[in-house]
Amino acid sequence: MTASEGRSLAELARLLGGEVLGDATLIVTDVAPLDTAGPSDLSFLANPSYLQRARESRAGAVLAGPGIDLGGRTALVVPDPYLALAVVLELYHPSPPIKAGVSREAVVGFQCHIDEAAEIQPRAVLGDRCRIGAGTKIGSGAVLGTGVTVGRDTTVHPNATIYDGCVLGDRVIVHSGAVIGSDGFGYAMEKGRRRKIPQVGIVSVEDDVEIGANATIDRATFGATVIGRGTKIDNLVQVGHNVVLGEDCVLVAQVGLSGSVKVGRRTVFAGQSGAVGHIAIGDDVTVGAKSAVTRDVPSGSFLIGHPAIEAGAWKRAAAIFARLPELRRRLMRLEGRRGDDEGQDTGSED
Amino acid sequence: MTASEGRSLAELARLLGGEVLGDATLIVTDVAPLDTAGPSDLSFLANPSYLQRARESRAGAVLAGPGIDLGGRTALVVPDPYLALAVVLELYHPSPPIKAGVSREAVVGFQCHIDEAAEIQPRAVLGDRCRIGAGTKIGSGAVLGTGVTVGRDTTVHPNATIYDGCVLGDRVIVHSGAVIGSDGFGYAMEKGRRRKIPQVGIVSVEDDVEIGANATIDRATFGATVIGRGTKIDNLVQVGHNVVLGEDCVLVAQVGLSGSVKVGRRTVFAGQSGAVGHIAIGDDVTVGAKSAVTRDVPSGSFLIGHPAIEAGAWKRAAAIFARLPELRRRLMRLEGRRGDDEGQDTGSED
Amino acid sequence: MTASEGRSLAELARLLGGEVLGDATLIVTDVAPLDTAGPSDLSFLANPSYLQRARESRAGAVLAGPGIDLGGRTALVVPDPYLALAVVLELYHPSPPIKAGVSREAVVGFQCHIDEAAEIQPRAVLGDRCRIGAGTKIGSGAVLGTGVTVGRDTTVHPNATIYDGCVLGDRVIVHSGAVIGSDGFGYAMEKGRRRKIPQVGIVSVEDDVEIGANATIDRATFGATVIGRGTKIDNLVQVGHNVVLGEDCVLVAQVGLSGSVKVGRRTVFAGQSGAVGHIAIGDDVTVGAKSAVTRDVPSGSFLIGHPAIEAGAWKRAAAIFARLPELRRRLMRLEGRRGDDEGQDTGSED
Repeated sequence: MTASEGRSLAELARLLGGEVLGDATLIVTDVAPLDTAGPSDLSFLANPSYLQRARESRAGAVLAGPGIDLGGRTALVVPDPYLALAVVLELYHPSPPIKAGVSREAVVGFQCHIDEAAEIQPRAVLGDRCRIGAGTKIGSGAVLGTGVTVGRDTTVHPNATIYDGCVLGDRVIVHSGAVIGSDGFGYAMEKGRRRKIPQVGIVSVEDDVEIGANATIDRATFGATVIGRGTKIDNLVQVGHNVVLGEDCVLVAQVGLSGSVKVGRRTVFAGQSGAVGHIAIGDDVTVGAKSAVTRDVPSGSFLIGHPAIEAGAWKRAAAIFARLPELRRRLMRLEGRRGDDEGQDTGSED
Repeated sequence: MTASEGRSLAELARLLGGEVLGDATLIVTDVAPLDTAGPSDLSFLANPSYLQRARESRAGAVLAGPGIDLGGRTALVVPDPYLALAVVLELYHPSPPIKAGVSREAVVGFQCHIDEAAEIQPRAVLGDRCRIGAGTKIGSGAVLGTGVTVGRDTTVHPNATIYDGCVLGDRVIVHSGAVIGSDGFGYAMEKGRRRKIPQVGIVSVEDDVEIGANATIDRATFGATVIGRGTKIDNLVQVGHNVVLGEDCVLVAQVGLSGSVKVGRRTVFAGQSGAVGHIAIGDDVTVGAKSAVTRDVPSGSFLIGHPAIEAGAWKRAAAIFARLPELRRRLMRLEGRRGDDEGQDTGSED
Repeated sequence: MTASEGRSLAELARLLGGEVLGDATLIVTDVAPLDTAGPSDLSFLANPSYLQRARESRAGAVLAGPGIDLGGRTALVVPDPYLALAVVLELYHPSPPIKAGVSREAVVGFQCHIDEAAEIQPRAVLGDRCRIGAGTKIGSGAVLGTGVTVGRDTTVHPNATIYDGCVLGDRVIVHSGAVIGSDGFGYAMEKGRRRKIPQVGIVSVEDDVEIGANATIDRATFGATVIGRGTKIDNLVQVGHNVVLGEDCVLVAQVGLSGSVKVGRRTVFAGQSGAVGHIAIGDDVTVGAKSAVTRDVPSGSFLIGHPAIEAGAWKRAAAIFARLPELRRRLMRLEGRRGDDEGQDTGSED
């Protein structure tokens, strides 16, 4: 995490397609937050609520979007500051190179195919017949079951667990503690007790997926639970058995999707939201935080609430919710004047 | 997870107490989902919303409940398709046999009693004085503290953790990443700061319990947190210290039960619901998804909401919630005609 | 977890600054719950709802607060029974002493500084350049990345994971399965797809913090995610990147804080609550269970709901929510008598 050598602001501007306001010869040696950045650091401003902090920062320069008034401070103005931030962080903090090879402290089963450009760290455990692609890193304490297939340039962080038969694509990131392929939660009733339905399917994680720490993705009862290419899953998310998530979806922390939910492309579930089982949710849907989707959702919808309804309608209703006591008093007043009381709480005015 | 040899549909019908509609001589070689099943596969239909998919499936036959019109397709009709599915999946995908013995790569403490028919996988760690029954499997990376007792035919999946002194019964399944026996969340205030109350109790997990991936069950402050026989706990569920769960309960994913909650038998908490501490919840209660139980609940109740109220009442109220803006306009109209305005939002009509 | 030798009730009373009602010569040999305590056990009563159980208990004596009528049963009356409980549990169940030294079964990287009074258990993995203080215990299966710094008298329980560069203070407790320093959830859009923003900051956990089982705390994009001194975090809590939590806060189980939230001192989030990103929450705030904080919150507030509003207002509104169907009927009656119907559900009375 140490920064590499310095680059001038002019050089960074060329790289990022941006424009320097102020001293373009400044040598930037690292990237740092507004409140701790020093005179040779580039800092970052995207959220306008931090404007005052940006003005007061000791940063040598601030990376910002167009049209932001930094009060004369040196700025590197770019069309998309988040994208520029990604680029400069990669530049100043490149990922450490992989240490190719299988640690003698790792446990590797029979008939595994491990590319010689893969890194298997100490204490990793691979079951029989695993396949690991080039550039892939399996962290310490990670456990892969029998017949797990992992593509190229994928990282399985320490203490993650992948059950038997699951498949991970290329450039996948699985964070620590994530569990992929645990049994789906399915039982049949038999004489008043629950009999486990064997869960014999797999989880298929496509390319460019990221799965957060301690997230859990259940294997299919049969067939596959699918996480589509480019989908990003945050920490502590639960994905039930036989869920099919399309490409480029986002599941923010602590989301829970029940079994057999089908989700289209580019759909976003905000934090702590969820969906009941066996429903179909379209493309480009947004589900608000803490919301519960209880029925099929057409593409392009924006839903909030429990049950989730159209976001605008929910917001108007939620604004009135807080005023229910007042509405009730007004209703009582109308009733009281007319002398027709229905409830126990009205009508004593005349 | 590879399927075993084929069986005729007639043979399966006899085994399941079902009836064949169509060609009973068909040899079934595996079980598969509707959309990927081929001509020698048996597929499965329980949810009527998949009826169209069942009609279009290439499956050789479909396992289904009575009275479903599959349009002439070969069917194996059974009284309870879920139970039948459990049976055929066990038949075609039997669990791999246990590999009895203690891996040389495992770490085993002093004075442990491990049945010779138990499997201790590489990298498992057992503290001193653990007892492991016959047919039990302790997975790679699983860590058992001091004095943990595990019964027969139990599976502790890789990277699960069982703290000191906890007890697991027979035929228990603990999925990866689950933590059993972590400290209860209890502090006393002392001069404005929190002083930890030592948590010296245990967790007792009775027979036939299943505990999901990354679920957490806290040990009792003193005494025992109890998970009753046959109770099924899904992924990422939190069970607080001194909770006592009765037999055959179900906690769906991401449920949270606060400390000292007492739950009867056969009670079901749907996903992301919860209960405040120190309350008693009866038998056969259903708590809806995302609901928060805040007081004692009599047996047989069905509750939804935050706070959780009787389900029918909640559903009626939730349906009106979305129409609050309309109700308010109607109230304003009544007020406006009468000229008695209370709020800032009314009464400009006359 | 075995109790040490006995002490008389009089001796305990002196130690705790309490008063004995009844036989002060009773020798107490252990501490036990009301329903399992025997004649030489001290039990505990703080919640008045357990009064009947306390009266019926076989405990030799009951630890209780002032003014509780135990019906003649021997009692040890103390000003603060929770604090007294903490003291007696420490007395009767002292933590086992640390087994100083680095297990030969542990993996330790280059240039680590491990105090000789620290315990590194079998199967623990430490990356290069870690620093471990005296009295600290790193449990089996715990994985520390490169350059992790841990203070004195800290416990990292088995199978916890600490990513590169994170810092833990003194007397910190990290429970099993917790993940500290996983990547923040940050992406930039690039041609319709998400490009990962490298997360190059750290997590700084200050002294006397406790972090629950399977909790996740993301590293900062740059700079540090900070958990302030004395803050207590329960199981399955999510803390996003760049969150700054003040001292002595409490996050109950399954809370989720989005990125860049700033929280003051002594603020409490009840179970399953959350906060959206980039907001500032003051000191001594209480957020109710399942609530969602969506904007800045001044110190001393008590909020509930989604969105979270002032607790009293929420409680009044929530009480009316259940009666919405009745309010609507009353509104319809008023409208019906007047003959001015707006919706489809009114006005047929005259």
